[in-house]
Amino acid sequence: MGSVWKNSRVMKLFAIQTPIVQAGMVYVSGGKLAAAAANSGALGLIGAGSFKPAELHDQIIKAKSLTNAPFGVNLPLLYHGVEEQIDIALKQGVRIFFTSAGSPKKYTGFLKDKGCVVVHVTSSPELAKKCEEAGVDAVVAEGFEAGGHNGRDEITTMVLIPQVVDTVKIPVIAAGGIGDGRGILAAMALGASGVQIGSRYAATVESSAHDNFKNAIVKAGPGDTMLAMKGLVPVRLLKNKFYHDIAKLELSGADNEIIKAHLGKGRARQGMLGGDLIEGELEIGQVSGMIKSVLTCQELMNCFVDEYQKARERI
Amino acid sequence: MGSVWKNSRVMKLFAIQTPIVQAGMVYVSGGKLAAAAANSGALGLIGAGSFKPAELHDQIIKAKSLTNAPFGVNLPLLYHGVEEQIDIALKQGVRIFFTSAGSPKKYTGFLKDKGCVVVHVTSSPELAKKCEEAGVDAVVAEGFEAGGHNGRDEITTMVLIPQVVDTVKIPVIAAGGIGDGRGILAAMALGASGVQIGSRYAATVESSAHDNFKNAIVKAGPGDTMLAMKGLVPVRLLKNKFYHDIAKLELSGADNEIIKAHLGKGRARQGMLGGDLIEGELEIGQVSGMIKSVLTCQELMNCFVDEYQKARERI
Repeated sequence: MGSVWKNSRVMKLFAIQTPIVQAGMVYVSGGKLAAAAANSGALGLIGAGSFKPAELHDQIIKAKSLTNAPFGVNLPLLYHGVEEQIDIALKQGVRIFFTSAGSPKKYTGFLKDKGCVVVHVTSSPELAKKCEEAGVDAVVAEGFEAGGHNGRDEITTMVLIPQVVDTVKIPVIAAGGIGDGRGILAAMALGASGVQIGSRYAATVESSAHDNFKNAIVKAGPGDTMLAMKGLVPVRLLKNKFYHDIAKLELSGADNEIIKAHLGKGRARQGMLGGDLIEGELEIGQVSGMIKSVLTCQELMNCFVDEYQKARERI
Repeated sequence: MGSVWKNSRVMKLFAIQTPIVQAGMVYVSGGKLAAAAANSGALGLIGAGSFKPAELHDQIIKAKSLTNAPFGVNLPLLYHGVEEQIDIALKQGVRIFFTSAGSPKKYTGFLKDKGCVVVHVTSSPELAKKCEEAGVDAVVAEGFEAGGHNGRDEITTMVLIPQVVDTVKIPVIAAGGIGDGRGILAAMALGASGVQIGSRYAATVESSAHDNFKNAIVKAGPGDTMLAMKGLVPVRLLKNKFYHDIAKLELSGADNEIIKAHLGKGRARQGMLGGDLIEGELEIGQVSGMIKSVLTCQELMNCFVDEYQKARERI
């Protein structure tokens, strides 16, 4: 494997064997997925967003029991209990933190002082610059095609990556729309030194997504996701009844309070973990249109290596 | 130059020296731009959409007077007078046609019978398949980040290209978000055998866009375009007063008739050709955020070659 991947700054930063990061995702990436991704040579991330502090503790313990490879924690800063989560992760020896959905200034200094590697997720070159100034070690630059929460400027991966690469000196990890080895190579061509892959890992054996949701990802066609709730926090969803109801409200000019009331609570858990494909919120990327199977993390890595190698030979 | 570009199916198809197509664009790409692009080794295209038949005739004559290299005509099928335009182009010896915004079945057979190379523009794998069945020689697969008229599914270049490549056997020309050599290489990594570049050519010396518009492209930042008029025909615009007025109407839930009335007639001409940056419609791609200069087509080609080579060495 060492012969396929050119040693990149991202590989050195995390001491991993490939330039691939498995994205931390709510309801999808617990300790089992992070460990399996790590064992295959990627950087595994536990998505802390959907875990209460005690649950996060258990997921870290689980990951440690399943792998000796490095893994990290993704912390969306918009949830309550972030500081407790950080405290638990540090106590359990986690030293890799991906932060998102908040200011990179908030915890970067604190985490760096504890000897951590800190990465912040950005959807624009301007925010990437702020991340660099806040002292992060790398940025994830995430395009419009990505699943889940998304930037307001709707900048796609193709145009975002080169602009972020031209703006900062720290390594850039490309995210959004990457689901196979061709996408990994394309991201590298654009100047990234690593990639973060989410949706493709949601449809793995080790993902904690409900089987219904995994099957829905596999069945999804190219145009089956859309960015919704642009007035609140934009989020890319699989087009199910829940999505269409929200879209109809938005098209009618309904204000945010009405949309919030319809949204209610716990819809993402209901869909992604509970498997309710009708009334649940199914956060997933556009790349779901090209995901055709549920694989183990190791099988997936074998595909990435093979596809990347073939694409590189072609160009 | 022959040593940089791997001879691709697209280069063979058009008998050109590079895998680059200069997009046919309304009010931007007349005979002067098409000829200059052709002289630099790209395939030049005259954008017929904004020309009356007699004007198209003059633009073809102009292009022929400026180059001996092959060039073609782009025909958006949604305008009146398309058949007259085809007739004029054929009589002037044009044998390369790019068609868009209509059914590929309509003219492909007729043009193929006249010995033409026919390419149709698509924004989804499904339509790409229909194009192939209609007998076209290649497809342009154009992503959400592209300027001007755009697909309803909002599929980005990063995820569109591999899916189209996996769907059809004919060559795929990637478009949308490509503005430098890194983007060209990324498109090739995704499986394309050529690229179509629009916005970057709009800001060339030989483009017929108004200088005000060219300067606005150079000044545009990463998040300065947005897809608008989704209820009519979605179009990507630079965010000026005209755009904000339309966006406000859309957000309020205004129906299409109200938006049409506000839109009025001739707004694209007013903006792109007339230079009215306030009330004019300025169609441009997201990649405008990374365009920092107005260059000649030959200078631009030199940049593409240099950037492509450097990116390929890097990976």
